Amino acid sequence: MPQLPDADTLLEALVAQMAPHVTDDTALVGIYTGGAWLAERLHERLGIRHPLGTIDVSFYRDDFGAKGLHPQLRRSDIPFDMEDTPVILVDDVLFTGRTTRAALNELFDYGRPARVDLAVLVDRGERQLPIYPRYCAHTLPAPIGSGQRLQLSKADDGTLSLRLIDA
Amino acid sequence: MPQLPDADTLLEALVAQMAPHVTDDTALVGIYTGGAWLAERLHERLGIRHPLGTIDVSFYRDDFGAKGLHPQLRRSDIPFDMEDTPVILVDDVLFTGRTTRAALNELFDYGRPARVDLAVLVDRGERQLPIYPRYCAHTLPAPIGSGQRLQLSKADDGTLSLRLIDA
Repeated sequence: MPQLPDADTLLEALVAQMAPHVTDDTALVGIYTGGAWLAERLHERLGIRHPLGTIDVSFYRDDFGAKGLHPQLRRSDIPFDMEDTPVILVDDVLFTGRTTRAALNELFDYGRPARVDLAVLVDRGERQLPIYPRYCAHTLPAPIGSGQRLQLSKADDGTLSLRLIDA
Repeated sequence: MPQLPDADTLLEALVAQMAPHVTDDTALVGIYTGGAWLAERLHERLGIRHPLGTIDVSFYRDDFGAKGLHPQLRRSDIPFDMEDTPVILVDDVLFTGRTTRAALNELFDYGRPARVDLAVLVDRGERQLPIYPRYCAHTLPAPIGSGQRLQLSKADDGTLSLRLIDA
């Protein structure tokens, strides 16, 4: 496994990719938890007008039954009108695509968006669904194996960094 | 609008792309109607072992309410065990991605596939969802406009051809 890229550098690359496509009507929705932290930063840097949305897909994943019941409540919050709004869905790491599919389904529960684009900090590859990001700051050069999970961590001082943890 | 490519030529290109990735366990599901005709041909040419599946997304499209109730019954038919099976979803033309999302949801109603790849004859662009085909024989060089629909037609003698019709 090569050294993980610096989260701040990737964030800047993502801002540069997204900025030319952001309009007054664009809304941002982060996938809890890593995607939500990333979306907070993007929301500020891109000057998004709509308040930031958050999606928690714990109850939507297709392997939900296998993983057992999560005791916490859903933390989804969509504080804007989804109907006909162009939405950018934000996640820290794109892997199989199953989380993205679940997040899309939850978004559509709130209304029919004009479009949904996907923005991710890192694409780790090994996709299992026909999902693809419009904006992506970094693609891993090689698989990291199913035993490990790559995710964005947030330190007490708010600093974001990419970490490998056991899956 | 440039001249439409020949459906048979595109079919051969698609077979060549897909063949190296097909295994004994691969299943094919065509999206009714154009995708189902295409899937019939691919199923035969690729020597797929599982019987061919068909998905009708009339009741799943997110604009279902706007389009009104279709009087016909659902014509979905999945004659194999979806659980843990690698599936290739087949459509004639990829456009906004909304039909693909609806088809994915219907597939998952039958079980949790090992993976789902998307194969299309033509990508006409103008995507509204983060959907991308793994296999695609042709990408249109320019938008054809929302007033027209590109779809695969089947003649009485079984010949397939691409046609532009009013949307």
